[in-house]
Amino acid sequence: MDSQRTVGALLFEGFELLDVFGPLEAWGMLAMSGACRIVTTAERAGSVASAQGPKAIADHALAECPKLDVILVPGGVGTRRESNNPVLLDWLRQRSPTAEIVVTSVCTGAALLARAGLLDGRQATSNKRAFPWVVEQGPRVQWIRQARWVEDDRFVTSSGVSAGIDMTLAVIAKLTSIETAEKIAVRMEYVWHRDSSWDPFAKVHEL
Amino acid sequence: MDSQRTVGALLFEGFELLDVFGPLEAWGMLAMSGACRIVTTAERAGSVASAQGPKAIADHALAECPKLDVILVPGGVGTRRESNNPVLLDWLRQRSPTAEIVVTSVCTGAALLARAGLLDGRQATSNKRAFPWVVEQGPRVQWIRQARWVEDDRFVTSSGVSAGIDMTLAVIAKLTSIETAEKIAVRMEYVWHRDSSWDPFAKVHEL
Repeated sequence: MDSQRTVGALLFEGFELLDVFGPLEAWGMLAMSGACRIVTTAERAGSVASAQGPKAIADHALAECPKLDVILVPGGVGTRRESNNPVLLDWLRQRSPTAEIVVTSVCTGAALLARAGLLDGRQATSNKRAFPWVVEQGPRVQWIRQARWVEDDRFVTSSGVSAGIDMTLAVIAKLTSIETAEKIAVRMEYVWHRDSSWDPFAKVHEL
Repeated sequence: MDSQRTVGALLFEGFELLDVFGPLEAWGMLAMSGACRIVTTAERAGSVASAQGPKAIADHALAECPKLDVILVPGGVGTRRESNNPVLLDWLRQRSPTAEIVVTSVCTGAALLARAGLLDGRQATSNKRAFPWVVEQGPRVQWIRQARWVEDDRFVTSSGVSAGIDMTLAVIAKLTSIETAEKIAVRMEYVWHRDSSWDPFAKVHEL
């Protein structure tokens, strides 16, 4: 199928489970229609342990990963180490320009895009608990504190963990149709927060 | 730690990603305090493909799985096959009585508990799109159509996919405290639907 998009989730030791599998659940519902396929990739192919313990499998090593139309960059405690990993940052720099559609980043995943220099001069957000650390990783980024997600050209960054599901549904709505995204939310029995400026957690985490 | 609970997620080919990793994200936040640890189990240890494609790793074969305090049974297309798998149904029958705390089942996972006879005479729910099929798997179960989740003694069953997160937070609140569950929801930046009778999707899927 010529129009089939490839959605690729980046994995690394200590990735946040829901940052990856919330969005991939929504993409998976789209994949059932043949509109996309999902792959996973990590520095080395094979088993990758999440921050929570459970392990997922990376289908491809970064160097062998097929061309991705959508790149999903998760957060998690592992981002503290990966923000200094030149192999991963180089891969983001090389692959982002050829991601025709969007580069989505959940939670502290935005710190990795920032460290790769990809968000310089752009608007972006991240999760609220780790916000000060993320901001330090990208001094030239226009960080938006109160936002469920932020879209700037092909770069879409979301707030913490479950915000990735809302962002993904918005991206799917843009790439397909609002009706398709609504249908996916209903199948997930998920109440989609559609307003990207809605963010009750910005205030909670200030406390 | 004597009081540490073991939370075990059952995996099988075609499990629904978010049914497993939504709840495990919440349990994972509890695990950070040392109050629980998470393991995964499947008929055979090793790689298990989800309904959406991405693969997870089962830490233990069913026969070698350590004693579980909490058993998480996901749904997904694979339940159609597993509802006729005597190895898996026997394991559920053997392990459920020794699960001291609860047996949680998300989405069509309730069909597996029903086929194992564990829900006979009990109240339970399941996801709304596959409701008629699930009901057929347990003619002696009191199926509750409109519910986000249903608790009956140690058996807690939830509605579709994202309902598993709401149920898990309620179970965590019961096992620990409401404050702990609230803190976890905020860390996940997740709006917890706390009312188990809230279920806007029961009506949508009637259409």
